Amino acid sequence: MSQPDGTRIVLASRPEGRPDPGNFRLERAPIPTISDGQVLLKTLYLSLDPYMRGRMSAAKSYAAPVEIGQVMEGGTVAEVIESRDPAFRAGDIVLSYSGWQSHAAVAAKGLRKLDPKAAPVTTALGVLGMPGFTAYAGLLAIGQPKPGETVVVAAASGPVGSAVGQIARLKGARAVGIAGGPEKCAFVRETFGFDAVIDHRDPDMASQLAAACPDGIDVYFENVGGHVWDAVFPLLNTFARIPVCGLVAQYNATGDFPGPDRLPLLMRQVLSRSLTIRGFIQREFVPTQGKAFQDEMTRWVADGTVKYKEDIVEGLEKAPEALIGLLEGKNFGKLIVKL
Amino acid sequence: MSQPDGTRIVLASRPEGRPDPGNFRLERAPIPTISDGQVLLKTLYLSLDPYMRGRMSAAKSYAAPVEIGQVMEGGTVAEVIESRDPAFRAGDIVLSYSGWQSHAAVAAKGLRKLDPKAAPVTTALGVLGMPGFTAYAGLLAIGQPKPGETVVVAAASGPVGSAVGQIARLKGARAVGIAGGPEKCAFVRETFGFDAVIDHRDPDMASQLAAACPDGIDVYFENVGGHVWDAVFPLLNTFARIPVCGLVAQYNATGDFPGPDRLPLLMRQVLSRSLTIRGFIQREFVPTQGKAFQDEMTRWVADGTVKYKEDIVEGLEKAPEALIGLLEGKNFGKLIVKL
Repeated sequence: MSQPDGTRIVLASRPEGRPDPGNFRLERAPIPTISDGQVLLKTLYLSLDPYMRGRMSAAKSYAAPVEIGQVMEGGTVAEVIESRDPAFRAGDIVLSYSGWQSHAAVAAKGLRKLDPKAAPVTTALGVLGMPGFTAYAGLLAIGQPKPGETVVVAAASGPVGSAVGQIARLKGARAVGIAGGPEKCAFVRETFGFDAVIDHRDPDMASQLAAACPDGIDVYFENVGGHVWDAVFPLLNTFARIPVCGLVAQYNATGDFPGPDRLPLLMRQVLSRSLTIRGFIQREFVPTQGKAFQDEMTRWVADGTVKYKEDIVEGLEKAPEALIGLLEGKNFGKLIVKL
Repeated sequence: MSQPDGTRIVLASRPEGRPDPGNFRLERAPIPTISDGQVLLKTLYLSLDPYMRGRMSAAKSYAAPVEIGQVMEGGTVAEVIESRDPAFRAGDIVLSYSGWQSHAAVAAKGLRKLDPKAAPVTTALGVLGMPGFTAYAGLLAIGQPKPGETVVVAAASGPVGSAVGQIARLKGARAVGIAGGPEKCAFVRETFGFDAVIDHRDPDMASQLAAACPDGIDVYFENVGGHVWDAVFPLLNTFARIPVCGLVAQYNATGDFPGPDRLPLLMRQVLSRSLTIRGFIQREFVPTQGKAFQDEMTRWVADGTVKYKEDIVEGLEKAPEALIGLLEGKNFGKLIVKL
């Protein structure tokens, strides 16, 4: 007996620069059968994240690219609808990495069971998931903010930036956010409680940032790249730390960048101000910081100490447009597709 | 009764780009008198180091510039010829920072007495002094080489580079040096015992470096900047560490650097390879590494485990030309002026 079909989105072609909807293809696909040790998942929520742009390109990065015709990768919250593993049963809600598809047969090993009573399950994709952990580990392990220091983060209304600023404040530092547009800026100040917020669309951004950081910048959490860097750079204090977890502003760039060459000036300041620039992928810190994050962040979210914002789009077919918008800062909070 | 005059070299004007002899002025000067707590020093040896180029410019750096008309700064080995401090007496040999002059009245506090029997006193300006400590602290505290890893350092025949490579090998890593010209390269391989050496004047340097680093580069100790970086950059491994202690190749640069802009590519690789770039000035590590350095390096030098090379120029009046040459890589070993 053939089961009803599922749906999935595959990479149809590699983008040159900005992706467009034609780089993706929505397909019908049979619902897979499972073997021993596997579970059949029905996707409830799909996470959309900036790193996905990297997976669409063939260029070498920290992870292998998605191949043409393959299902786009992505974190998901899913319901177990059939299990051939004793650790799971139908009805369980799990965190998976099953990608842009309605159904998936996956190994039970590596799935994390979620407790819908402990926190809304979507938080496993955001504040209590990879973006929240990126913020927590990068800020605490690399940024190491001290009481009274100034921490600056861009995309401050997003899932990483909003957590960075709130954790910085919990550690006694000042948090200065950068966000796009008055609505996001107001939210960052009022709901996330940052000490100051700058609108990066304001042509006067650099001088506003300088005014908001009268004692300079001790930690710049780099998750965007682009023109924000030029405003931050002159304000960095001696011994400033710069965790680098994302460069969304340049993910769509192609070819050479026009001069002048900013590298010699960067290196000069690295030397004369004893700067630390440190790129990282959150999984590096799972062994050392994973448990502390789960304990501390779950408590902070549960008691309302740390706030979060989700931007939920309905329907798998909306995922391509939503991801394209994310790369241009059109989302407002953690972008999630509800299937 | 007036004493015979001493000599000194002052900064006559600030260089634009490459310094020339006219930026310095040799003056006669009366030998100073001392007050309580001071000693009168007669300079025996003056250290010449790349950082001095920075002190000649008015641009903000990690230390204040030398003012026009002031004596050029620099580390010295000097003899106490008169003392008004109980801790020193005439005939003592000390490490000082008394600058480009034959005599100086300085506070006794802060001077370090040298034992000419323990090691040649000039080593206090090189392998057992600031350059040696720069190598030791930067390599061990930031570079953290592990057995089997590959450490690359430029200016490998100089006092910092030669120590970096030798310490790297003592820690079980492979040392690959970069130096200018066949004579220096041979010395780096044969006397300093590096595993491989590349001549940076060879147009084929990049492919030679790649061949010498079949497992990539885990630590690049950056003490020169310039075109060496472009050869190193593609070879950096995931989690590579880049201590930055000097950029002599760009100290004479003026104005903007022509494009393309290499900063976006740098940041992309910082992210995708989880690189650490960390500028430092050695004094940061004195509290944590100073004693270990004195103990370990003194032993290594005394028993011949660590070799060093000095390039000694005679006469204070030769100091300007010697410093100008140093900035162009003309020295061969630790550059010292013998007065």
